[in-house]
Amino acid sequence: MILRGDRLILGTCYYPEHWTETMWRDDLKRMKDTGIEVVRIAEFAWNKIEPREGNFNYDFFDRFLDIAEEENMKVIMGTPTATPPAWLTEKYPEALNADKDGNLFYHGARRHYNYNSPVYQELSARIVEKMAEHYGKRPCIIGWQIDNEVNCENDEFYSESDHQAFRKFVQDKYGSLEALNEAWGTVFWNQTYTDWKEIHAPRKTCSDSTNPHEVLDYFRFVSYSARSFVKRQSDIIKKYKKQGDFITTNGLFGNLDSHRMNRESLDFITYDSYPNFAYCLDAYSDKPGNMKDRKWSRNLSMTRSISPVFGIMEQQSGANGWNTRMEAPTPRPGQITLWTMQSVAHGADYISYFRWRTCTVGTEIYWHGILDYSGRDNRRIREIREIHKKFEKMKKIAGSHYEAKVGMIKDYDNTWDSQLDVWHGRLEKQSQKAFFETAQLTHTPFDYVNLDETVTEDDLKGYKVLFYPHAAIMTQEQTELLKKYVENGGVLVLGCRNAYKNINGKCVMENLPGVLADFAGVDIPEYTAIAPDTEKVIVNWEGTEMEAAVFAEQLDTLDDTSQIVGTYGSDYYKGTGALTRKAVGKGEVYYYGSAYTADSVRVFLEKLDVIEPFGNLAEVPETCEIAMRTKNEEKYLFILNYEKTPASVKFLKPMKDLWTDNTLIGEVELEPYGVLVAEVL
Amino acid sequence: MILRGDRLILGTCYYPEHWTETMWRDDLKRMKDTGIEVVRIAEFAWNKIEPREGNFNYDFFDRFLDIAEEENMKVIMGTPTATPPAWLTEKYPEALNADKDGNLFYHGARRHYNYNSPVYQELSARIVEKMAEHYGKRPCIIGWQIDNEVNCENDEFYSESDHQAFRKFVQDKYGSLEALNEAWGTVFWNQTYTDWKEIHAPRKTCSDSTNPHEVLDYFRFVSYSARSFVKRQSDIIKKYKKQGDFITTNGLFGNLDSHRMNRESLDFITYDSYPNFAYCLDAYSDKPGNMKDRKWSRNLSMTRSISPVFGIMEQQSGANGWNTRMEAPTPRPGQITLWTMQSVAHGADYISYFRWRTCTVGTEIYWHGILDYSGRDNRRIREIREIHKKFEKMKKIAGSHYEAKVGMIKDYDNTWDSQLDVWHGRLEKQSQKAFFETAQLTHTPFDYVNLDETVTEDDLKGYKVLFYPHAAIMTQEQTELLKKYVENGGVLVLGCRNAYKNINGKCVMENLPGVLADFAGVDIPEYTAIAPDTEKVIVNWEGTEMEAAVFAEQLDTLDDTSQIVGTYGSDYYKGTGALTRKAVGKGEVYYYGSAYTADSVRVFLEKLDVIEPFGNLAEVPETCEIAMRTKNEEKYLFILNYEKTPASVKFLKPMKDLWTDNTLIGEVELEPYGVLVAEVL
Amino acid sequence: MILRGDRLILGTCYYPEHWTETMWRDDLKRMKDTGIEVVRIAEFAWNKIEPREGNFNYDFFDRFLDIAEEENMKVIMGTPTATPPAWLTEKYPEALNADKDGNLFYHGARRHYNYNSPVYQELSARIVEKMAEHYGKRPCIIGWQIDNEVNCENDEFYSESDHQAFRKFVQDKYGSLEALNEAWGTVFWNQTYTDWKEIHAPRKTCSDSTNPHEVLDYFRFVSYSARSFVKRQSDIIKKYKKQGDFITTNGLFGNLDSHRMNRESLDFITYDSYPNFAYCLDAYSDKPGNMKDRKWSRNLSMTRSISPVFGIMEQQSGANGWNTRMEAPTPRPGQITLWTMQSVAHGADYISYFRWRTCTVGTEIYWHGILDYSGRDNRRIREIREIHKKFEKMKKIAGSHYEAKVGMIKDYDNTWDSQLDVWHGRLEKQSQKAFFETAQLTHTPFDYVNLDETVTEDDLKGYKVLFYPHAAIMTQEQTELLKKYVENGGVLVLGCRNAYKNINGKCVMENLPGVLADFAGVDIPEYTAIAPDTEKVIVNWEGTEMEAAVFAEQLDTLDDTSQIVGTYGSDYYKGTGALTRKAVGKGEVYYYGSAYTADSVRVFLEKLDVIEPFGNLAEVPETCEIAMRTKNEEKYLFILNYEKTPASVKFLKPMKDLWTDNTLIGEVELEPYGVLVAEVL
Repeated sequence: MILRGDRLILGTCYYPEHWTETMWRDDLKRMKDTGIEVVRIAEFAWNKIEPREGNFNYDFFDRFLDIAEEENMKVIMGTPTATPPAWLTEKYPEALNADKDGNLFYHGARRHYNYNSPVYQELSARIVEKMAEHYGKRPCIIGWQIDNEVNCENDEFYSESDHQAFRKFVQDKYGSLEALNEAWGTVFWNQTYTDWKEIHAPRKTCSDSTNPHEVLDYFRFVSYSARSFVKRQSDIIKKYKKQGDFITTNGLFGNLDSHRMNRESLDFITYDSYPNFAYCLDAYSDKPGNMKDRKWSRNLSMTRSISPVFGIMEQQSGANGWNTRMEAPTPRPGQITLWTMQSVAHGADYISYFRWRTCTVGTEIYWHGILDYSGRDNRRIREIREIHKKFEKMKKIAGSHYEAKVGMIKDYDNTWDSQLDVWHGRLEKQSQKAFFETAQLTHTPFDYVNLDETVTEDDLKGYKVLFYPHAAIMTQEQTELLKKYVENGGVLVLGCRNAYKNINGKCVMENLPGVLADFAGVDIPEYTAIAPDTEKVIVNWEGTEMEAAVFAEQLDTLDDTSQIVGTYGSDYYKGTGALTRKAVGKGEVYYYGSAYTADSVRVFLEKLDVIEPFGNLAEVPETCEIAMRTKNEEKYLFILNYEKTPASVKFLKPMKDLWTDNTLIGEVELEPYGVLVAEVL
Repeated sequence: MILRGDRLILGTCYYPEHWTETMWRDDLKRMKDTGIEVVRIAEFAWNKIEPREGNFNYDFFDRFLDIAEEENMKVIMGTPTATPPAWLTEKYPEALNADKDGNLFYHGARRHYNYNSPVYQELSARIVEKMAEHYGKRPCIIGWQIDNEVNCENDEFYSESDHQAFRKFVQDKYGSLEALNEAWGTVFWNQTYTDWKEIHAPRKTCSDSTNPHEVLDYFRFVSYSARSFVKRQSDIIKKYKKQGDFITTNGLFGNLDSHRMNRESLDFITYDSYPNFAYCLDAYSDKPGNMKDRKWSRNLSMTRSISPVFGIMEQQSGANGWNTRMEAPTPRPGQITLWTMQSVAHGADYISYFRWRTCTVGTEIYWHGILDYSGRDNRRIREIREIHKKFEKMKKIAGSHYEAKVGMIKDYDNTWDSQLDVWHGRLEKQSQKAFFETAQLTHTPFDYVNLDETVTEDDLKGYKVLFYPHAAIMTQEQTELLKKYVENGGVLVLGCRNAYKNINGKCVMENLPGVLADFAGVDIPEYTAIAPDTEKVIVNWEGTEMEAAVFAEQLDTLDDTSQIVGTYGSDYYKGTGALTRKAVGKGEVYYYGSAYTADSVRVFLEKLDVIEPFGNLAEVPETCEIAMRTKNEEKYLFILNYEKTPASVKFLKPMKDLWTDNTLIGEVELEPYGVLVAEVL
Repeated sequence: MILRGDRLILGTCYYPEHWTETMWRDDLKRMKDTGIEVVRIAEFAWNKIEPREGNFNYDFFDRFLDIAEEENMKVIMGTPTATPPAWLTEKYPEALNADKDGNLFYHGARRHYNYNSPVYQELSARIVEKMAEHYGKRPCIIGWQIDNEVNCENDEFYSESDHQAFRKFVQDKYGSLEALNEAWGTVFWNQTYTDWKEIHAPRKTCSDSTNPHEVLDYFRFVSYSARSFVKRQSDIIKKYKKQGDFITTNGLFGNLDSHRMNRESLDFITYDSYPNFAYCLDAYSDKPGNMKDRKWSRNLSMTRSISPVFGIMEQQSGANGWNTRMEAPTPRPGQITLWTMQSVAHGADYISYFRWRTCTVGTEIYWHGILDYSGRDNRRIREIREIHKKFEKMKKIAGSHYEAKVGMIKDYDNTWDSQLDVWHGRLEKQSQKAFFETAQLTHTPFDYVNLDETVTEDDLKGYKVLFYPHAAIMTQEQTELLKKYVENGGVLVLGCRNAYKNINGKCVMENLPGVLADFAGVDIPEYTAIAPDTEKVIVNWEGTEMEAAVFAEQLDTLDDTSQIVGTYGSDYYKGTGALTRKAVGKGEVYYYGSAYTADSVRVFLEKLDVIEPFGNLAEVPETCEIAMRTKNEEKYLFILNYEKTPASVKFLKPMKDLWTDNTLIGEVELEPYGVLVAEVL
């Protein structure tokens, strides 16, 4: 399928409706000159097709597509449902989203609609059907983008339609009020429901505290609503699109199971990558441990867990900024290339720059595209021309896969539970941050592994080590799967606070860690948050020291199949168990009674012998990221320098620099923001 | 009356509705084993008795009470009105409280009702009547708890019913609009009311500023509403309860005259004591001057001013935490004992731990009880078993009274005025903090003395010194009472900004300090907030220096019956009067023109010879609290170590350690969080 | 006209309705004793004239005016429309303002009305007409104040009437939806309007981001609404007032073109000057660069740009404070004089103290007047008596004008654009702060020059140098005017980010700086916000170094009529142009590619030879402000010491101290907060 696996391709986002028709052809020609082959269009252009309710007119994009075909430009067609017309929301305010107090979000920004209003479902399905029917067979079209950035701006919905849909959602899920009351533990604070009409999506409550089990279901409901909205569009487009044309959507946002959305409705996911957010004047921090633009590698890894080879629908090409917030500098020379290659290193085969020309009107006048307001040639378009040349030199990378032997397990139930539960959330935040940073700084590539019902032993067996730090919610089925992984030789590293909740987020009345106890061979007679007046808590793991954080479970072994291998060094639990190990089949399971820290992750990676797998190929400073994409026997090494100072790399084996065809061996200097893409010989 | 004065008794909070009936008997047996004799139940269990409107069923608690009686467990029965059922608030949303903008607080948390909705008054009175009628004669019941934590979560009410009730409240109070307009000074900003329907409880206004005299009446109204709500229940229960059974409610919250509520409706007050709040991860501060868990002695002193011997209905027994906020560590070994003895030292004869088992569902899953989710035996239940043994050893303490020769006068009018008035509030906050901390650190026990219309000379004569720092509102009657106290030999220490407001909070057009001028012999021709660019202001009191804070009144004597004994050392008022003294009858009145600081309180305590009254018994480090309870000639000394390090105490006279029967004399070491309870021989 | 130009006159604000009638005569006599000749009254007294709807009664103020005339007191009559009566807003809630969510601001504070409600327009016009008709010919009246502090408390309006009026405003402005859609760039995010009823004033939107061009029009609409409201009153008063009586209003507030309001409706503006805000306990900062009370000279300069000779309707005479916020100390000895003279130095001929007696009721009980609650004589009234004597000694200053050779151009379009546009706002804030502070510290007096359609070459030609830092919006007409100024010998200093927007705030698709490019001879091929990780950026201007801030435009010359005279020293734009100069006619235009800093302003003032114009008269420390008022050949020098420590001044030429008639020459010491007013001989 085009954009994945055949070549590395450049694109851009184009807004024909912003410019005079006389500019279109010149712009397309100039894109081709720059090496850009694809444009995404139409995702905010509902009025251009249906300027009044039920009044459809296709001329505008017909004219544009005519020119695109004449100029041999490929087109990704966006459905325009992220920005309903003024006539729609004025006539049907029930289509609008609302805040928790019921105040509507009105026309003037974007994504102010809700997924569950019947009238919006009908009118948005109709515009998609009309567009797909009319434009579906145009030869220039290669694919479709559904809506734009699903769940961006808001990922909570409180319109009247949402309250009704939530009621139906839980009615379908639980069947009876008895079951719902049991699942939600409504006996607490006398919350028992006695009539379905008493059920609402979360509303304003005293102390802003609502039943957590309901909130967990509410997040699931939001995800379901968004997925259903996307699927309705996907089903329509499939009826009309040409064979081989793809369906995608762009970005990763909250309260949305993107993995399932992708399976249900998309051919692959695309991501919108804006690493320059790290340099916004108000947001910037140079605290130690801030990974700045390098943090986008985390998002790209998450994207890859959905689609191993993917696209970037919007790649940073200028300063970001709205008129109301976000003041960021123009990317420095080399940064556009760096961030482009960051995307490619993690699995992107398609890079589409946002946007061709900088918008001159509206909220996004400071969200700079390739060209500034005047449209004159500038440093940034020249850099992108060079990127095109580089892509030509490295094109065989397309279709190759990112290489990782370490996995970090994630699952949506626990992600959402950690949002609504501050005890869980603090742990998750700490451990995820520590893990990502240490993996990056030690040049240990890793994958996110999304644990859902589709995952099998086979999906896991490629990983030498899997981390799963705080699975508050853990089922028997998941335990069985993890056990098989370990029995087959895998190593599983659990953190604290696992398996103390069931699938509804209710605490289990068992000895902890619940369903994991036998598997991990561990018992937890006592636990505590690390008190704020406790000095640094050191865990001693067979002579190696590492710092604990946030929480301290005091571990015992269940029986002699497991061993305590680490103990705490502080407070009243000094000397009690902090880390256990149990051999299971050919593998091992570790249970760690605390949250991860930068140094404890490093110790785990070292002791489990998965740190720095490409250390035999090159010595690279911490400030550079290292990544490898492989295809069959071919191996492509990426080295990315995120600093404004040069970096010195020492190649231990000869490689071929794909951009220059030079052989790389010994000391090589990367310029500031410099990148090397090398084939391992 | 049981729970006060006969013995020291342990209890716990139990939620039969959370657990299967098969667990009840075992739980009660195990409680008895632990030394627990009383359970409080039912305070959130409306649905268990009235699952549908008007549909009453008593089986559930009948079954529980049967078992309680079989197991010889005493029961405190809670009325369930803090958490109305879903069917109620769905059908009668007028029962809900609202924020100032009129947005309702919905079902899902607790205390979302308002006191003034007629339908809620009716339905809550009915459930109380039904419960009292049905269960009132059960032998196991020893008392009743009305509602739960009155005015917790919200202490402001803005439902439509509240607006109407407020209108009626002020109509009853003032009789005519003329009187109301005069009392509220509505001539200011043209606020004059010309029709009763123009009167509302405070609503959203520009700059969030409403008539302060109205707001003062509004706080009085909230207190009246809450008290009336409690009294309606109390009156009902009195009709049905057994002779000797008590009525109480739990906790101290805002905008509520708990003293009057107690007189009107209760036999005594109980307090809910959670000193571990001081260690919540987000709230913790180790700034110097932070008294941390020791601050709860302030709350206990306030409780004691309502009921000299009282109970703790909820005493901390585990980590606190909701799923939405408050992450606190598990109490360290010894802390449960420390906090229990802190309560007892201040006058509690009943300690009921919150709660038996940790809740596994809902918002409070992290508000740990004695037992964790699994119910297994743990360190905390073992510590409580030890407390029970200690109680047995010290049981004769029951009924004894806390010993203090120093009083801090408080009154609700000024407390509420200091809430709505930032000038008053800043002074009050500064002086109260300084006073409490210094009294604690100097081992000078004190009582809060609530000044209301029931207080007589006799109530005051036991105090050598009374402090009354900032009585902005002061009446002629209060002045007369204070004068009698002084004439009889008392020493009264006033701070700045007294008596400049009348009972409505309107400023008096007299030379300041208004009604106090003659009594204190002082005149205040000028005053100022201490400017933020003024260096430290030192007051020199006959050679002793102490720091002034926040405000500087420049004092003159009215005539030669009074003397300036302290002068300022800074700014343009350098050399002017800061402190006056006047002999009145056998006593003295001091007028201090500033707010209290830690060092000025120490100077007052020293100069007035009331500091460290038990210094002849023992030398105790600052980090320990000291308290004495006395009964007839018996004296019981408590020494409490709040630190995680040991403390060294030197006994100057021999005492008997009540727990060990050892004689204490000379150097004795208290372990971390250690407590000594000793009888003075 | 009285109060401007004839004499220096003292007044006060008086509230007869707050005091008993028996106090009035004594108060007026005592004012005269103090030197006070004028009282402002009635501005919050609607109920005293119309206690019920349509029920008018003039007795109250008739009685007061009788006494005023007997006591020979002049009166400024306020219209009472800032505080509608309770009966009005209760019956007509449509008269109330609302927040963006539509929640009304209710009775209880002030300024809770909206300008566009038809019923409020009618009722407020009626009360004004009744008052003007009845009192207009009273001999004691010398002028009228319309409403009070227009746009204070709130300068945004979202009532239903405002939504409707905004719709009409843009309908009148644009005529067609096509024109509106074009002007607002509604093509962005599919915002196109297809029916006028879809237009609303800004409402709640996602991410709180609304179309910026609409918001710009909205601010214009608010200004239009306020101006129209004032004009309606002014037109009515003109029908009834005596010949020679003036019309004014007081204060400067947001979203209001006070210059145009003044031209349309007023004889001159008055300002309300409260420099003690700088010392509020919560707001105070002693960071370097905080100008504290000296910042009020900025506001006075802005006032002067409206009316070169003006009045102070409310001058600080005591502590400021509401009961809900703002705790400030009492002015120190000398500060009332200092702040009074600060007003006079900048052009005030009338000083009216707020207020005679401190209010004893309502929100402003801590907003102290001259007298305290008791009314006793105090230090402050004594200081004002001395001020009166000083005024007598310096009375010939009246009518003279503030002397400045430097101008800072301001215009409302850019001011409002900088409010809604954070990129523009950050620049404007930085440059205005730096400019004011440096001008003050270098003793370089300046005027604000309001650039609107009434300004001509003649208005500008008196300035040697004009600064205009960030005119994001710039028109061809403005460019032509500035060009004429320069051609005639003026020097114009532009900062960065000029002329990139049109009058609607839409970005121009031209090479930057758009309409200024030819005039300034500059081209801007690249620009960037200075990145947060960029070290200090130094600009080297022909050997002089100065710091750049916030932004870096990389300047080229357009042709050889201009020169690059300064270059950047940092980051990837090191060595590129930072400052250009072009000779145009007899003058020069500078284009500076960054925002101003304290040191760059100093360099500009020095290099352009306009720094410290009175340096030949006296050497004055930075901590003192210097100002000159001139009339014909007479020159009056003001030296104001803002510090609590003495200041040493060295007079280089002999001058006459107007207060003492002494000759000043050589070293002279100013006491803390001291002021010298000297005639240059």
